[in-house]
Amino acid sequence: MPLASVTSLHQIASLVPELPTFDNDSAKAALDRQNQLTKPPGALGRLEDLAVFMAGWQRSHRPEIRIAQALVFAGNHGICAQGVNPYPQAVTAQMVANFEAGGAAINQLCRANGADLSVIALDLDRPTGDFTQGPAMTETDCLDAVRRGAAAVNGDADILILGEMGIGNSTIAAALSAAIFGGDARDWVGPGTGSDADGITRKTRVVEEGLARHGNKAPLDKLAALGGREQAAICGAVIAAREAKLPVILDGYICTAAAGPLHAVDPELLAHCLIGHRSSEPGHCRLIDAFGKDPVLDFSMRLGEGTGAALALGILRGALACHNGMATFAEAGVAEA
Amino acid sequence: MPLASVTSLHQIASLVPELPTFDNDSAKAALDRQNQLTKPPGALGRLEDLAVFMAGWQRSHRPEIRIAQALVFAGNHGICAQGVNPYPQAVTAQMVANFEAGGAAINQLCRANGADLSVIALDLDRPTGDFTQGPAMTETDCLDAVRRGAAAVNGDADILILGEMGIGNSTIAAALSAAIFGGDARDWVGPGTGSDADGITRKTRVVEEGLARHGNKAPLDKLAALGGREQAAICGAVIAAREAKLPVILDGYICTAAAGPLHAVDPELLAHCLIGHRSSEPGHCRLIDAFGKDPVLDFSMRLGEGTGAALALGILRGALACHNGMATFAEAGVAEA
Repeated sequence: MPLASVTSLHQIASLVPELPTFDNDSAKAALDRQNQLTKPPGALGRLEDLAVFMAGWQRSHRPEIRIAQALVFAGNHGICAQGVNPYPQAVTAQMVANFEAGGAAINQLCRANGADLSVIALDLDRPTGDFTQGPAMTETDCLDAVRRGAAAVNGDADILILGEMGIGNSTIAAALSAAIFGGDARDWVGPGTGSDADGITRKTRVVEEGLARHGNKAPLDKLAALGGREQAAICGAVIAAREAKLPVILDGYICTAAAGPLHAVDPELLAHCLIGHRSSEPGHCRLIDAFGKDPVLDFSMRLGEGTGAALALGILRGALACHNGMATFAEAGVAEA
Repeated sequence: MPLASVTSLHQIASLVPELPTFDNDSAKAALDRQNQLTKPPGALGRLEDLAVFMAGWQRSHRPEIRIAQALVFAGNHGICAQGVNPYPQAVTAQMVANFEAGGAAINQLCRANGADLSVIALDLDRPTGDFTQGPAMTETDCLDAVRRGAAAVNGDADILILGEMGIGNSTIAAALSAAIFGGDARDWVGPGTGSDADGITRKTRVVEEGLARHGNKAPLDKLAALGGREQAAICGAVIAAREAKLPVILDGYICTAAAGPLHAVDPELLAHCLIGHRSSEPGHCRLIDAFGKDPVLDFSMRLGEGTGAALALGILRGALACHNGMATFAEAGVAEA
């Protein structure tokens, strides 16, 4: 069943058997090529792993990045009524305008690393519900955001970078992560955009209330009850990318947390996803451990927007430049060990 | 005294008082700008630190990378007579030909990250002496290589990437590092291009012989006695870059080890240098600790050639793209916390 045919959140689990899988033959052929290139085998370290990863998902022993798509989803959150963020909620729309004008960090990093950026504002004038009072989204609302995320994916791209923006969404990321992966609220709450100790205490209490109300639901119902539209859209984009055989680079805490419900449904849903960087938001380390994925970069970034993922794209470009552009020992007339 | 006037290795210490220093005013102005950009203060993590570093050395609050120069120095080593490397020594010249033909990893990473690459082969048909029998280089030979490294630096560049190639040079890097920073030979010897356990044992014994013979000399005499021409050239390029106010990105184990004697003379000689990446060669971690510098990347690379430094250049480009291209809160009309 393709995502386009899904009529309920629970049907997402039924997508798994029909999803494209990693092509071991292409990966093997790419690794064979790596071992013939003019360097000691393995000497490019992680760059070799990334080339092989791209080969398996692009189903080609010479994977390429011609079109890199970056999608940033923005949402507003009823939980801001609980005073969880030092910035006013209006900043979400102001930052979307900044993205559209080209003035944000993600604009610069997409330009520097050759990604085509689209920003998708999801009903900013209609924040989700306050999850301490009821579910953030109805199933219909959540499924609508999933579909909008999926519809934004360019199936002709070669890789997809995902990011988000939304005042208050480090609180929903903490609530969703705690609900999916367990642990105490305080294990998942961090400073976000810049909360002080009092702010973190307030965020933690709010997350505890959310867990008490919604913590026993099924994974995708947790996404609807505790998450944001930008997170549901990320889930949709992750699945649509997989259907199009596109590798994905997830960004930091909020973006990785968004994929948590998919991990809980089946980790195979995220097999085509890299984590672009290790955020300095403490909950991200826990998510990384839970996902069992090694982030590409570790620069103490905590901005979101897809910035860590866009920066990681440059590393992938370097990995593929070596993979495709280097001479073999035979081509270069270099003696082997 | 400028480097061009130096007539003995020992005079290098006397360069320090006249070297350009980090400009704190430019760095402060760059940090002020970072704090006005449309992001929470500090949210770009290491990228902000890198922008401020570049500002201080370029003496501008809006540092730029228009010309990035990459220099790869190649040398051959008499120590290869001791069987320290599984590859034949002819591979050094073969790899230089590969660099010149555009087929090596460094060619691809320079192209991908916008660096102008020059490869400088240093008397490959005249290997240095076997340091178990006598000094690798005379002072004249060593000073000549220092000068050739310095002469290769383009003073109009905005940043300099340094790398090396030379069959056998992980052995000389180990010997030089042990002589400069202390510890046992086995602390500094690793697999290099691919030595097995027997090879590592052989390398360790050779390094012990070198230390017994040359371990009590002054730092720059250790460079001459144990190092290679490519390492002396790296020292010259580091100093010439500093005289031209160019920040430098050092590469992995051999390149960082080359700078060890300068560190021993005065750590200030390396204040303008970043370490591009943490190599998987075990001795590199010890050098990094000794230098007290945090490498930009950590990808388990161990190829040399400047590959880790060239990859780090892409990160610096991202850092400066954000620094120079982002809107301030005032420019974008975004509310502050």
